[in-house]
Amino acid sequence: MDEKETGRLEAFSDGVFAVAITLLVLNIRIPGLDTPGKLLSDKDLWPVLLGEWPMLAAYTTSFTTIGIMWLNHHRLFVHIRHTDTILLLLNLLLLLTIVFIPVPTALLAEYFVRPDLHAAAIVYTGTCLGMACCFNGLWRYASYHNRLLGKNANPHAVNAISRQYLFGPLTYLITFGLAWVNTPASIIVSFILALFFALPSHSLDLLASSSASADSTEVSPADRAGTAGGSEG
Amino acid sequence: MDEKETGRLEAFSDGVFAVAITLLVLNIRIPGLDTPGKLLSDKDLWPVLLGEWPMLAAYTTSFTTIGIMWLNHHRLFVHIRHTDTILLLLNLLLLLTIVFIPVPTALLAEYFVRPDLHAAAIVYTGTCLGMACCFNGLWRYASYHNRLLGKNANPHAVNAISRQYLFGPLTYLITFGLAWVNTPASIIVSFILALFFALPSHSLDLLASSSASADSTEVSPADRAGTAGGSEG
Amino acid sequence: MDEKETGRLEAFSDGVFAVAITLLVLNIRIPGLDTPGKLLSDKDLWPVLLGEWPMLAAYTTSFTTIGIMWLNHHRLFVHIRHTDTILLLLNLLLLLTIVFIPVPTALLAEYFVRPDLHAAAIVYTGTCLGMACCFNGLWRYASYHNRLLGKNANPHAVNAISRQYLFGPLTYLITFGLAWVNTPASIIVSFILALFFALPSHSLDLLASSSASADSTEVSPADRAGTAGGSEG
Amino acid sequence: MDEKETGRLEAFSDGVFAVAITLLVLNIRIPGLDTPGKLLSDKDLWPVLLGEWPMLAAYTTSFTTIGIMWLNHHRLFVHIRHTDTILLLLNLLLLLTIVFIPVPTALLAEYFVRPDLHAAAIVYTGTCLGMACCFNGLWRYASYHNRLLGKNANPHAVNAISRQYLFGPLTYLITFGLAWVNTPASIIVSFILALFFALPSHSLDLLASSSASADSTEVSPADRAGTAGGSEG
Repeated sequence: MDEKETGRLEAFSDGVFAVAITLLVLNIRIPGLDTPGKLLSDKDLWPVLLGEWPMLAAYTTSFTTIGIMWLNHHRLFVHIRHTDTILLLLNLLLLLTIVFIPVPTALLAEYFVRPDLHAAAIVYTGTCLGMACCFNGLWRYASYHNRLLGKNANPHAVNAISRQYLFGPLTYLITFGLAWVNTPASIIVSFILALFFALPSHSLDLLASSSASADSTEVSPADRAGTAGGSEG
Repeated sequence: MDEKETGRLEAFSDGVFAVAITLLVLNIRIPGLDTPGKLLSDKDLWPVLLGEWPMLAAYTTSFTTIGIMWLNHHRLFVHIRHTDTILLLLNLLLLLTIVFIPVPTALLAEYFVRPDLHAAAIVYTGTCLGMACCFNGLWRYASYHNRLLGKNANPHAVNAISRQYLFGPLTYLITFGLAWVNTPASIIVSFILALFFALPSHSLDLLASSSASADSTEVSPADRAGTAGGSEG
Repeated sequence: MDEKETGRLEAFSDGVFAVAITLLVLNIRIPGLDTPGKLLSDKDLWPVLLGEWPMLAAYTTSFTTIGIMWLNHHRLFVHIRHTDTILLLLNLLLLLTIVFIPVPTALLAEYFVRPDLHAAAIVYTGTCLGMACCFNGLWRYASYHNRLLGKNANPHAVNAISRQYLFGPLTYLITFGLAWVNTPASIIVSFILALFFALPSHSLDLLASSSASADSTEVSPADRAGTAGGSEG
Repeated sequence: MDEKETGRLEAFSDGVFAVAITLLVLNIRIPGLDTPGKLLSDKDLWPVLLGEWPMLAAYTTSFTTIGIMWLNHHRLFVHIRHTDTILLLLNLLLLLTIVFIPVPTALLAEYFVRPDLHAAAIVYTGTCLGMACCFNGLWRYASYHNRLLGKNANPHAVNAISRQYLFGPLTYLITFGLAWVNTPASIIVSFILALFFALPSHSLDLLASSSASADSTEVSPADRAGTAGGSEG
């Protein structure tokens, strides 16, 4: 009765994540391929290759960001087991922002060297803010009164995610505001936030409530599987 | 005996939907990446970024359209549980029109500002008409005498979809005709239609037959799962 | 014990098919998008749109060809249930030729109007020949002494596929030879062959051995499922 | 209790592999498509087609390399059945290097004709070294004290993989060093290494320890399934 209904939603989302994560590699140019026959000497090729660094940086940043978003998506759908039309639409909205990420990331990687320019950082942090709102909306909708969660979803794990997600839009709003004033600060805060969301909610929970550790001594294996974040029931 | 046979058809379709839905993001240019080293000041970059709006609009429209089509595909294959060669071929024909959608959508987004020009709207509504016919053909073929549906497919849910799909090709034919006369009207009707097909057939059913509500008071959980549209058995 | 081991091979292949089938849509240009602001009048836009027909034809042909190849792949893996390293390598070789198909197809669509030119048809039929050999190799390897087939694989269905595949490489070799002499004839034979492989082996079997019909009157449901080609156990 | 938790990780990875493996086919140009109407005669078309050979070689090499990497990934995840956040992050790092492979491969294919130039070979072998380290890290992390392996993972098969992977980074480090001195030698060693990792660990094991053959006479069917490398439990 509590069969997983989200199979196709996950398969479709995985496909979209997979395409989005590889997009920026298309922008890395292979020197000389467009002018076959004219090969560069080592001395000339190295500078050309090293001149590709902004696109390499953009590719790596975008890959990392989308990778962490996939990790979060995966983590939510460990608990979400049912679907309805609104969840499918919220998921599509989330994917819309995720596929868009390579664009502001490439822009940011390029303008990173000029801390006095704000446009790139504003577009980037704005996209992150939108994405954080989508993730929150999806999770709030699904977890509200356990609407679409599994019957034996671990309430500790569910609450840990809800607590972790509480700060998402607010902190991204702050980085968005910061981008208008201080570009480097807003970017550094963005990366710390990405790291924060890459960590499982369980480990953050431990950090935050180390005083209430009496509770966590009696974690059952099922509980552990749930909070480990990466596990799939 | 009533095992789901459509697993690979769905996986392949999900992959095609995933690639098609991300295609238009490739058309959004990142200013300055092709001319590295020459960075624009904020004052100059904003107009360049805002000048990208037709491609952004095209990306969003195309994403929404294909997303809703995926939702419909998902909804049909909750009930379709068997496959044969003709269903596979009809599904391929449907995917052919879906992968094509980004092309007329980008054209439409661009020519949207000129209501006196008809070509873009004609190509767009024509593609929608073709897609509606493919969806109808697929569903009629599969649901005819429950040919490829599951054994315990809910007849209410099946009939609700059949009723919703009855109007598809006809209304799209009207928007197609309208495109030759009045471009803005045809586009507005197209978007209302997309919204109409995004809604689950069940809720439409409720709207349409609110008088026959005596029937729907005894909806069993299984029935609800079936008509919710987004659920997957 | 006879659990399906080919899940990941099929998922990966589906992904590759999905990307390959959408590739040629990237070549269809949207007029005016590269020169924003400069919109064409209806009178000027129609010829530009109609001028895209070679790429539209290439997209449709390539989509159809790869779609039929997916159908065949699907049909073989109804019966193949086990994997080993050699099968995985043969499958990769097959995917290598399938991803390549859009290239000769686009070339063929372009040179179709010039029946006196042979190069495009030679490259196209050569690719088809390679693909037919890969499909044959894969099937011969897997079906040899039921090496990788399921325990209760239907011998009738397996033999029907083997018979259908027997003519593949030979007939494609003939079309390849024909391409050097008579371009239109070789293309027409190619399309008839594609149609032939789109049909399930069962129906061909019926056509071929209508005299031995006494046998097929006692087809069990399991047998039917197997020979229907599109079914997945 | 020992249920496979890695389903979504594998589905997402398959998607990324599928996109990466098709990327280089996008670089193969179809002569004349950009200048419609101007068709070349056979005499002129053949040299143009044959002039595409560096991109064809790059496509084939990159497809083979990524295909073999997929095979290895598949082989590891026969045994890995659980996930945690660190495994997901290590897998993302591995995918980052795999999506990047088409870039140095295309560069290498182009500069292959000039054995006196080292840059391309250095970038290529450097990427291979990074990939070998990622594969090793992933496997060491998962197999350490059977951390994420299935309960009844075959210790022989697990050890065989560990032994095979022991030499990976070291030998790739040697080819990387060789690339600075002797380009052709480093490329040849790279291809032999790729072949080495395409072979199942079991067969290598047999080659290496043919003296200790007394052990392998009592291989159980379960053991065989595990070491066959391509099987999926």
